[in-house]
Amino acid sequence: MTDITHPRLRLRPKGGSRFRTGAPWVYSDELVLDRRTRALPAGTIVTLEDAERQPMATGAFHPTSKIAFRVLERMPDHAIDRAWLHAKIAHAHALRDHLFDAPFYRLIHAEADGLPGVIIDRFGDAVAIQPNAAWADLLIEDIAAAVMAVTGVSTVIKNGTGRARALDGLPEETTVLQGALDGVVDVPMNGAIYQADLLGGQKTGLYYDQRPNHAFAARLVRDARVLDVFSHVGGFGLAALAGGAAHATAVDGSAPALALAEAGAAKMGMADKFATRKGDAFDTMTAMAGEGARFEVVICDPPAFAPNKAAAEAGLRAYERVARLAAKLVAPGGYLVLCSCSHAADLARFRQVSTKGVHRAGRAAQIIHTGEAGPDHPVHPGLAESAYLKALFLRLD
Amino acid sequence: MTDITHPRLRLRPKGGSRFRTGAPWVYSDELVLDRRTRALPAGTIVTLEDAERQPMATGAFHPTSKIAFRVLERMPDHAIDRAWLHAKIAHAHALRDHLFDAPFYRLIHAEADGLPGVIIDRFGDAVAIQPNAAWADLLIEDIAAAVMAVTGVSTVIKNGTGRARALDGLPEETTVLQGALDGVVDVPMNGAIYQADLLGGQKTGLYYDQRPNHAFAARLVRDARVLDVFSHVGGFGLAALAGGAAHATAVDGSAPALALAEAGAAKMGMADKFATRKGDAFDTMTAMAGEGARFEVVICDPPAFAPNKAAAEAGLRAYERVARLAAKLVAPGGYLVLCSCSHAADLARFRQVSTKGVHRAGRAAQIIHTGEAGPDHPVHPGLAESAYLKALFLRLD
Repeated sequence: MTDITHPRLRLRPKGGSRFRTGAPWVYSDELVLDRRTRALPAGTIVTLEDAERQPMATGAFHPTSKIAFRVLERMPDHAIDRAWLHAKIAHAHALRDHLFDAPFYRLIHAEADGLPGVIIDRFGDAVAIQPNAAWADLLIEDIAAAVMAVTGVSTVIKNGTGRARALDGLPEETTVLQGALDGVVDVPMNGAIYQADLLGGQKTGLYYDQRPNHAFAARLVRDARVLDVFSHVGGFGLAALAGGAAHATAVDGSAPALALAEAGAAKMGMADKFATRKGDAFDTMTAMAGEGARFEVVICDPPAFAPNKAAAEAGLRAYERVARLAAKLVAPGGYLVLCSCSHAADLARFRQVSTKGVHRAGRAAQIIHTGEAGPDHPVHPGLAESAYLKALFLRLD
Repeated sequence: MTDITHPRLRLRPKGGSRFRTGAPWVYSDELVLDRRTRALPAGTIVTLEDAERQPMATGAFHPTSKIAFRVLERMPDHAIDRAWLHAKIAHAHALRDHLFDAPFYRLIHAEADGLPGVIIDRFGDAVAIQPNAAWADLLIEDIAAAVMAVTGVSTVIKNGTGRARALDGLPEETTVLQGALDGVVDVPMNGAIYQADLLGGQKTGLYYDQRPNHAFAARLVRDARVLDVFSHVGGFGLAALAGGAAHATAVDGSAPALALAEAGAAKMGMADKFATRKGDAFDTMTAMAGEGARFEVVICDPPAFAPNKAAAEAGLRAYERVARLAAKLVAPGGYLVLCSCSHAADLARFRQVSTKGVHRAGRAAQIIHTGEAGPDHPVHPGLAESAYLKALFLRLD
């Protein structure tokens, strides 16, 4: 190790108890914040000391964030440079390389992969980096170089649309840092081909987290008519076609997302089995029920209705309503898949409102599977309650 | 419907609130239990009435069990006969037939499949029925006939070793009700071949619930040395060999279970890659650590250390100890799989003590997957907290 000395950040006498047992964060009220520390720029690499000034760990500091310290290494005065980034990214890459046949996955999932606030998705020869914390924004060039060295990709995009960036005072911007990208990327997953517009922002990118849930749904769809509500670029619908569905209908409010879904179905040579319907999901499901439409498999993967505690109650009511409207569209003996990506709706509450909604639709259900995000979205043991994605697979009578 | 009239069982004025919102049970303290009802034999089919004597549902009554009423049909005076059983079993069979390529699965998973207290496992041409409730014990011949009619199996075993039977005052007995069975059954699962001794009781039968967790583990084992602790008949170890492991070692306290595991490895033509070690799991793991043994993948699937609330604290300490001892045996960058089948240790607590044990072994971890029982073990929405099986997949530094 080089003899680096980072600025010091000191714990209050009773601060850091969760950090000591493995949590990756220290909150601002656990720290001695004086004029010197408050003057440190957001993203400064610091060494954390205990109340007796014993140095403990290296991490990133943010003077105005509630999460004031994010650990990078549990050793003091550790160099946070390109070599360090390379080692972290190589460790994360080894897992994905082991798990997946093709280089399409989430490469870095923030804290759980040792890079707090950093999301990196790989799309074959391109990666999209979301530096959702100030330290990573400062080191973006080094992160990009390390990713290229580990993976050999030629194109690196900086995607600055993450919601968490605003909390860290970062601007919204998406740029091509390295290489070039023209148009849309083909993404193979579960036998389907998705179209991801990496420069079009969140609304037309691609989420890898539902991969195992797409795969489980695909086991249920043989010869089925499938309805994919909140379809985005066709996540469940195209996986269903790859899994042998007779037909899939995608419902979404975004015309660009539906256009990409249609393009994916065409690439798969299955455009004749695929239909889209643009509109509000609630209105569309209500209208379809009125039309007497029924499907052997109905999937609802809405945006986060309960992204935070303030929105939790209203969000849970929205999930119940989704369940009630969707259950009415399921043919006898069919399947209903209900997803939530809300941090503030835990599994028990989400399951409760979902089964209540189904019950209110007059249907009885068995829960045959509860899915989560795929293994390229690991969980930090100290933040295990943060596992956000839930997918309930119900079989209705 | 025939004009049957079952004996009446009446709710107390405030009883049955959970039942009305979907729970499958009514507890004894929610019911008016007088001399007449107390005199009904255990397992009597009754009609449940509300406090105003409005008939509500048909179910099974037990005069001395805390779970006094188990719903069979949410209609009063419903016939519970062979035709009814046939319909329930056919509905359950349709799900398994849809999900699995070969007829080896749990066919009936109690309440979630509409047959409270009844477990039926299918092993190709044979089924093993566990009638763990008095009503099912009374109707065992009809259940056996219905299963044979639905599935076409020729052999039916009654397995009377379920722990829940004692609660319902049922004797322990295992008998062949129909057909014949000589010796051990070959069970194909995840590419492995298991040896199930259906007449040898719990210790040498087979559990299907770990199927998806065996499959996930198999994705991690390519060329790995694998340690399968609490191996039983080789569940994870043989799946690992099928998944491409270089070698698997099974540790268990039961010589008959290990002999069946060895027989399975031999059937797979992989006896040379398989070793067993009989002994107490804690002692053996301690000894192996002392010997300097290291494995790329270590799996611990212990029996229920916390089967009930009274045993919860001691059970959680045992899980922590398993995690600590096992983590020491994992090679750098390797994987640790920790399972719990304890009802009284919920996922959050189990995860907490597991990661604490790993931390105490001086290892850092990421959680890459949290597994549950397979879809042939559905969950009743009203008993969703009862999902008992947890499998934590950790990657260690």
